[in-house]
Amino acid sequence: LPDMISISIDAMSGDSGLAVTAPAVLSALQSTPDLKITMVGDEKLIKQAITAPPANLEIQHASEIVAMDEMPALALRNKKDSSMRVAINLLKDKKVDACVSAGNTGALMVTGRFVLKMLEGIDRPAICTSLPTMSSHCWMLDLGANIDSDAEHLMQFAIMGNALVRAVDDNHNARVGLLNIGEEQVKGNHIVKEASSLLQNTSLNYRGFIEGDDIYKGTVDLVVSDGFVGNVALKASEGVARMIQHFLGEEFKKSTLRKLSGFIAMPVLKSLKKRIDPRNYNGASLLGLNGVLVKSHGGTDEFGFERAIMVAYNQAKNGLLEKIKHEMDNMLHQEYM
Amino acid sequence: LPDMISISIDAMSGDSGLAVTAPAVLSALQSTPDLKITMVGDEKLIKQAITAPPANLEIQHASEIVAMDEMPALALRNKKDSSMRVAINLLKDKKVDACVSAGNTGALMVTGRFVLKMLEGIDRPAICTSLPTMSSHCWMLDLGANIDSDAEHLMQFAIMGNALVRAVDDNHNARVGLLNIGEEQVKGNHIVKEASSLLQNTSLNYRGFIEGDDIYKGTVDLVVSDGFVGNVALKASEGVARMIQHFLGEEFKKSTLRKLSGFIAMPVLKSLKKRIDPRNYNGASLLGLNGVLVKSHGGTDEFGFERAIMVAYNQAKNGLLEKIKHEMDNMLHQEYM
Repeated sequence: LPDMISISIDAMSGDSGLAVTAPAVLSALQSTPDLKITMVGDEKLIKQAITAPPANLEIQHASEIVAMDEMPALALRNKKDSSMRVAINLLKDKKVDACVSAGNTGALMVTGRFVLKMLEGIDRPAICTSLPTMSSHCWMLDLGANIDSDAEHLMQFAIMGNALVRAVDDNHNARVGLLNIGEEQVKGNHIVKEASSLLQNTSLNYRGFIEGDDIYKGTVDLVVSDGFVGNVALKASEGVARMIQHFLGEEFKKSTLRKLSGFIAMPVLKSLKKRIDPRNYNGASLLGLNGVLVKSHGGTDEFGFERAIMVAYNQAKNGLLEKIKHEMDNMLHQEYM
Repeated sequence: LPDMISISIDAMSGDSGLAVTAPAVLSALQSTPDLKITMVGDEKLIKQAITAPPANLEIQHASEIVAMDEMPALALRNKKDSSMRVAINLLKDKKVDACVSAGNTGALMVTGRFVLKMLEGIDRPAICTSLPTMSSHCWMLDLGANIDSDAEHLMQFAIMGNALVRAVDDNHNARVGLLNIGEEQVKGNHIVKEASSLLQNTSLNYRGFIEGDDIYKGTVDLVVSDGFVGNVALKASEGVARMIQHFLGEEFKKSTLRKLSGFIAMPVLKSLKKRIDPRNYNGASLLGLNGVLVKSHGGTDEFGFERAIMVAYNQAKNGLLEKIKHEMDNMLHQEYM
């Protein structure tokens, strides 16, 4: 493992650009002695945002920005000097160990795939992130990179995800569940049924089908799903969490007595908010690419963006890419020959 | 509209059978003067459970019970005198206006479809229920009756759902959203894109694509989705809600001071619990069948089962079936000719 971990940051993307990325970079560098960052973007603006750059910060100029609503194919074709593209180029050229962007998901996927290429044995990238559970946390993929995965793709997602859990959590026996609409073998569409058969023939600790509510129970360490289903499940979950917080706020405002009880319960409410704060889970990996590429939520703040940087740092430090390659080699040469 | 609403109840199904259905029936009858119920199941056991039957309660004997894990096709073929089948037969024979069962979803779907048949113009049934939102509530379908709906099916779901919102909420301009993984036209699979085009050509108040978190924002009154995606979204939502309640409980137990603050905040916590109590949303309609058939959660208690009875009561009282037929006629003869 390398002594220093270096990360390129697409400093201009996201809803707030440098206003979020600059303070997040400074904070991450301050708390992580073995981290080196290259901020990619408009040099003049970056220098304005960071007037006293620390020793482990470099700046790489890039003249363009991919807009948050830009068509991915157009961004790839027309913006070869975008902060996103140049940051990914640094990763491809092995100048850095990982790359983080809060940019347009589609453009990041397309550009990442074009520049970095896919790992051998993987057909498609998958978006993977960690989620809170009642007991600890789990990982889930795909969260929207694909909308029509077949059984083979789902199996590849499981293998990549398993390598991630091994690398980042040092968990060598990750319990893997396949998201379905019923636990019985008779339910589900033909894709998940076929994927389930494939997974049973791997060396993974495959636990069979799980339902949507199992995600948060902590019964598995890795949830595998098609990107359409995974994305809707994740967004619906965020929606419910926000609604409950909204209701809680409303209920505590209904009378003076309740306001007082809310004041008294404040430490608990703050702890709860922290535990379900989506910023703590910011930073999704684009697994399957030949490089550690992490996507931050576009609308996050500096705290959330720093979390995304730390996700990339942990994955690079723990040799995620080598572990995925190793798992794929094992699978390709043992199970299928 | 009829003066009395009569409902047949599959009294034997669900995880707890009569222990739940009997008290729920008695409570519903007591609170609803224009409700008449026929309990279907083992006559001897029903009479044991209800020693003093009220005037508006009838009992219809049925000798068999469909097990919760029984294969739907086998239940249909072999259990012609099951409480589920006989209860649905009463609906088919117009002896009652609606039917409620907490039995095996698959068996209820298959039996309902076989006995009641589909409405004209509807290819498949869809499961529809109401959900809480920040501002009020919305309706969502399909929640798992289908796992591979095409664009035409999704449009039919929208038409049925719209009729339901009109019938039950007296909302004649229901905002309809199509569940997708992005709000932009470029995202999503070909099925939702095609369904979106179809919906734009109807007279529905179609608002375009929505994402998972929009379900709970209250931006639409009707959420349309494939059953696989809808089921996972609903279950994931339930899982998050339970996890947050679990966290809240944990946080309030962490110290004596916090326990005290939890005691003081109890009224608020109880109100919150009530607002997100899934029992309040129990009772899903199997729309598309030629009869008002309502599915209760198998594991619910008497409070939840009574809610399911009231869902059936409201739909029958408001002429749901006639409204769906009317909407389908309009669509078939105006938009498509």
